[in-house]
This record gives sequence, structure tokens and C-alpha cells, in this order.
Amino acid sequence: MSSAADTIARIRAHLRFRAALAVLDREHERTVEDIIRLTEIPAPPFKEAARASAYLEMLRAHGLEEVEQDAVGNVMGRRRGSGNGQTVVVAAHLDTVFPEGTDVRVRREGTKLFAPGVGDDTRSLAVNLAFLRALDEAGIVTRCDLLFLGDVGEEGLGDLRGVRHFFREGRHRDRVAAFFTVDSPEVDRIVTGGVGSKRFRVTFCGPGGHSFGAFGLVNPAYAMARASLALAGLAAPDAPKTTHCVSVLGGGTSVNAIPNAVWMEVDLRSESAAELARLEREFLAGVEAAVAAENAARSTREGAVTVEIAPIGDRPAGATPESAPIAQFAAAAVAAEGYTPVFESSSTDANIPMSLGIPALRIGSGGRGGRAHSLEEWIDVEKGESLRGMAASLATILAVAGFEE
Amino acid sequence: MSSAADTIARIRAHLRFRAALAVLDREHERTVEDIIRLTEIPAPPFKEAARASAYLEMLRAHGLEEVEQDAVGNVMGRRRGSGNGQTVVVAAHLDTVFPEGTDVRVRREGTKLFAPGVGDDTRSLAVNLAFLRALDEAGIVTRCDLLFLGDVGEEGLGDLRGVRHFFREGRHRDRVAAFFTVDSPEVDRIVTGGVGSKRFRVTFCGPGGHSFGAFGLVNPAYAMARASLALAGLAAPDAPKTTHCVSVLGGGTSVNAIPNAVWMEVDLRSESAAELARLEREFLAGVEAAVAAENAARSTREGAVTVEIAPIGDRPAGATPESAPIAQFAAAAVAAEGYTPVFESSSTDANIPMSLGIPALRIGSGGRGGRAHSLEEWIDVEKGESLRGMAASLATILAVAGFEE
Repeated sequence: MSSAADTIARIRAHLRFRAALAVLDREHERTVEDIIRLTEIPAPPFKEAARASAYLEMLRAHGLEEVEQDAVGNVMGRRRGSGNGQTVVVAAHLDTVFPEGTDVRVRREGTKLFAPGVGDDTRSLAVNLAFLRALDEAGIVTRCDLLFLGDVGEEGLGDLRGVRHFFREGRHRDRVAAFFTVDSPEVDRIVTGGVGSKRFRVTFCGPGGHSFGAFGLVNPAYAMARASLALAGLAAPDAPKTTHCVSVLGGGTSVNAIPNAVWMEVDLRSESAAELARLEREFLAGVEAAVAAENAARSTREGAVTVEIAPIGDRPAGATPESAPIAQFAAAAVAAEGYTPVFESSSTDANIPMSLGIPALRIGSGGRGGRAHSLEEWIDVEKGESLRGMAASLATILAVAGFEE
Repeated sequence: MSSAADTIARIRAHLRFRAALAVLDREHERTVEDIIRLTEIPAPPFKEAARASAYLEMLRAHGLEEVEQDAVGNVMGRRRGSGNGQTVVVAAHLDTVFPEGTDVRVRREGTKLFAPGVGDDTRSLAVNLAFLRALDEAGIVTRCDLLFLGDVGEEGLGDLRGVRHFFREGRHRDRVAAFFTVDSPEVDRIVTGGVGSKRFRVTFCGPGGHSFGAFGLVNPAYAMARASLALAGLAAPDAPKTTHCVSVLGGGTSVNAIPNAVWMEVDLRSESAAELARLEREFLAGVEAAVAAENAARSTREGAVTVEIAPIGDRPAGATPESAPIAQFAAAAVAAEGYTPVFESSSTDANIPMSLGIPALRIGSGGRGGRAHSLEEWIDVEKGESLRGMAASLATILAVAGFEE
């Protein structure tokens, strides 16, 4: 048995850990209620304030110390350990991908909950609170302090701004020994690789004009269509996994006018910095070619199509070695619950500490879920599987933070 | 001298016509006041009711018979002729392009009036009332009845619904011998061609998903890009002039999500009904092919791209031959006032009667104006030029309706 598996086995066998699991079991319905309550507080990108306030009060009600909100809107509180203040961060992100006005009411069907954001990442916010109640009632002491963090700006244009601020300017940054982001249900998929991403807002401008009277002039919508299809055709290897997407778009003024301007947002990602650079290069070349093609296809007598490419996201790639204790603890804890652990790459709050060389992982909140980032997002809160996942993540956190026997 | 020019010359020389012009001259300031009063009653698309009520009372006060409002909101009244009830319609549209809440107060600077909608088409509503006063005071009798009409829904998504209803279901429709829409100031540009248009809002839906995790699923933005380029490539002859345009577009939820839905608005136009039908057919085929291509290019395991095509505009094409008496009378009357008449094609209330084979024109309300459909819209009510334009349009109407000498 590896030393990581041994540590996990000792924790799992301990009476206080078993007592903690009993609390998670007994309080499961309360955890589900917290998931629903938090999910139904909208938290669109850059508009997490209402949910942050509610979560701040919940952290305070759970007896944490130094409960506070920082300058960018992250909320946090400390559970003191027996050591010298070295800190393990247990984070979940407050924001969802969904814009203002999205219907975030939760529909419950048996053990399934349907709602935008319910699994990514609202369930984790509630699960971290459940961990706190379980630790307290079971009387568990860790060597490191545990800093529970509800952070802003993980999704989309948030560009990891919550955790980026936490590590750049936050007052706890020098004491962080390890970082967990509990993000989405799946516990078997342990994220040790931080996928880098580049995001752009590309705006195509032209002279515009009346759709009938000025017919024949260049139309920036056609340049954008070409650029979009050029991106769709770019190579995207499975390994290192590399992806691209035209995601949001808009423009134009009236049904009877050639648009003056249209725009699209584009997401490029790769596990490999070199692949990401290649993808960016080819994408930018495709945009230039698309503009040239439109200017060749129609009249530029009133002006040509021009393009402006604004970077709107740039997430550093990074990695926690799979051999690092934190990764080995996670794998052992997941395996101990009967799952097959897989190390993966993704783009999460853990990118930031990974890029700084701080041991960091994404771990799961337990249970199952699917269709994240779509309006059909769902999770399953069936108790047995939910508890197995929570047990795995809690054991991992305790192993890394130092479980005082 | 052509017979049309001869008829116009005889009308212009007649004492009763000269008396009518003297009334227009003497009452010019009252006409300007009516323009201001009507302009300051907001008449956004589909919300013409307040202005319609006011105009109904003005028609009644001008002594018309059978003053009424029809089922869609058009208001009208009849000035009886000496004949058997054959009717010449003299219309102006009540609606403006401007949404609710637009400041419609008129700013007067010298002879210029500034306000949204002041020229398109509020001035004409007031000018038609001035014509009535002039005809009555001068004792002019026409062979045909004159039906004065203030119609709804000419602009944009109104889609000509007022005049469409008038000719489809209105009780006067079987007696209409000719139709004038007095629309905007310019009298030299006589509209004999009714440009037909078809407008669609095309929504492409797909399963959506995470840009990295769900990479490889179909993306409705790429289906839309293909459909857009298919439209851009369709034939559009110069004569009969035919045009197409992707004008407004939008969609997507977040930079890191494959969009669930994207949409575009499309404007198709032609002077020829057959060309318009051909264009529509080819466009719809292009959309279907684009959707099929996207579903073939990427995975449909979570669902395929589907499309919904909603018609948002449908104006029939039509034309009044330039050789028709109504067009020849208008050209002669305009020329007699020293302007150079030009026959044009446009999309106006006259499209509907033109598409039914009824002689119809757009003529002008007189004076000058500019920046229609913008918040800087203005007209010039300088008396000399205003009266010349009004004289041209009144002579045209009398020639067509039959001036009883």
C-alpha cells in the first residue's frame, strides 16, 4: 500500500472521520436545501454580489473566524488548525455562466435537481458548508488552517479574477500550502492540469447602409461568417487536448440596414502552451483572410471591412505533478470509495495556484451531474452516491491539511 | 403637349384651382400648426391609437362623410364626388418608426421643424387636411369620391398592415379607382415601383455545452455562418433590382459555452415578385443545407442543430406602369412646378394596391426635409417651396379624380 493510500485508509478508519460521515448522512437533506437556496440566487458573471452576501452570512453562521469579503467580492472565513497558520484553501466559485434574467428556479424530479448553475458550481458551495458542520460536530482538528473561500469570476470573462486577486493581493496569499477548488460533482476526474485559454472579442466594422439602396457594399456579417468557419475548420488534437469555439455574437442595427458592426467572442484552449500558441496564430490568420475575402467579394467604395481583435481572457496553463502528495491523496481517497481516479486537465480556479507552483487540484462535490453550461444543467443528489463523493473529497482535504489523530 | 400635361395645365389655369391655392397660401400657418400638433402625439409602431383618435376628430371637423375607424385602427372619411362612387384614396400614414418614449417635441428654428416623424409622415396628414379645406372653400367638385385615409402600420414590422387590411377586408375596397399615398416631402421623386420584401428571423438551436468539455458537438453559430454565406452568394440582378442582406444577429450565452441558440434577421427585396419568390426559395434551401452541413461536420450525440424560420415582414412587389395616366399626371404636375420628375421604386403603402393592379403612386407633401428614420429628422416649411409641392400633388389628385370644370 502506498503511503498516500495508507494515510487515507487511516483517516477513513478513524472514529472522528466516521462521525463526520454520519453528520453528512444525517444532514443530507439540509445540504440539498442549501444547494437549492444558493442556486436560486442568480450569480451572473460580474454580478455575484447577492449570492456572495448570502454565502458570507452562511460562512459566519458556521462559526468561521475572520469572515470577510475582499476587494473583488470573494467571501471567506478561517477554521483554525493546530499548526502555525499554514493554510489549505477549500474553494468553490460563486459565479455561474448564465446571464442576468436566466430562470434559475430549481426543478426537482426525484433525486434530480435541474437548474442553470446547480452543479457548476453551486452544489460545491453547499457541500463545503456541510464539510464544516461535519468537522465541527465530529471534533476534527487539522494541522493547517482551512480557509473556506467562495470566489467570484471563475467563469468566462471573469477570467479567474477572484482567485487571481486572492493570490496576487489577498492578505492570505503567503500562507497557502495547498489549494482545492471543489468544482462540479464528479470526484473520479481529478484535475491536475490547468488548461490554458485565450479569449478574444473580434469586431468587424464596415460602412453600413440601406439594405436595398446600398446593396453591393461589403457586409461585416459575411466577413465574420467566414472567420467563424475558418476557426471551425482548424486542427484540434485530442492529445494534448485542444479546442476552439465561437460562443457569443451580436451586431447590426435594423432589419433593413447592412450592419455597421458585428462581433463574436471566441474561446481557444489547450493543455499545451505550444498548441495554444499555434491555434491563436492560425485563428488570427483566418480572421485576416476572412476580412480580405469579404473586401474582395463586394464593393468597398464606401469603405472596407476592418477588424479589431480584443483579448478578453488569458488563463495561464499550469500543472500539479501527478506524483505530488496532494494528487496521490486525492487518487487514493477516490479509489477507496470504489471509483477509478483519472487525472485530467481543465481550466479552473486551480490554474492560478498551479501556475505559481502551489499544490492545487480540482476535486468533486460528489454525486452525479451533467449538461453544465447549458440551460438543461442537472445534478443527482441521490444520497448514497453523494455521500461517497463527499467522503472522498473530505478525506483528501484532511490528508493534505494534516488530520490530527 | 401630351394629354397629361394638357390636363394638368387646364386644371392649373382654372379659377377654382387658383382659389384653392390661395386658401393653401392663406392657411399655411394653420397647416404648420397641425403638423406640430400631430407630430407631438407619439405614434410608435403598433401604438398609433392616440394619434388616430386625434386625426379622426380632425377629419370629422373637416366635414367628411362616413368618418370612421376600422378594425385595425385606420381612420378615414369620404368627400363625395359627382360620379357613381368610384373612389380615389388620398392616404398618409399615422405611424412613425420611433419607439415609445422617444421625445417627439418639435423644435422650430426659422422655417425648419425638427422632430422624429415630422416629415415621415406627419406633415402629409396635415397637408391632406389643408387640401380638404382648399377644395371646399374653392368649391371644387371631383368626379370620383375622395377617401381621405390616415393608416396604421406602414413602417418596419408594421408591414403595411393598415393598407393591407383596407384592401383585403375594408368596406371601400371594391370601389377604389386609384390610390395615392402622400408620404414625405419630396414631390419630384414619384414612386411607381413597389419594392417587395420578405423578412425573416432565423434561429438556429443546438444542444450547447461547455466549450472545452463538450468540444466536438455541433455549433449553431457555424450553421448560421454557412447560411449567411449562402445568402451572400445568391444572384441579385440589377434589373429588376433585387437585394439581400444579413442585417441583425445575436446569440450565445457565455464565452466558454457552445451556444444553445443564435439568430439572424434577413431582408430580401425585389422590384419583381417572381425574383423575390426565387430569392426566398433559394435562401430557404441555403438555410436547410447549412444546417445539414453542420450536423454532418460535428457530433449530434447530444442533439442536432435545428432551425426555426419566422417571417417578420412580407410586402408584395408591384408597379404602376410609368406610362399609366396616374404616373403621367404626376410627372406633368411636378414638372409644371419647375421640378424634374423622377420615377422611382421604393417600399410604401402603395405596394399593396400596386400588387393588386390598382393605379397607385407615392407623391410628396411638399417642401424639403431630411434625416428621416433618425432622431435628427427635419422638414422645411418655408412657404414658397411648400406651396409649390402642395400644388403639384393637389393637381395630380384632381387630374386622377376628375376635375369638374
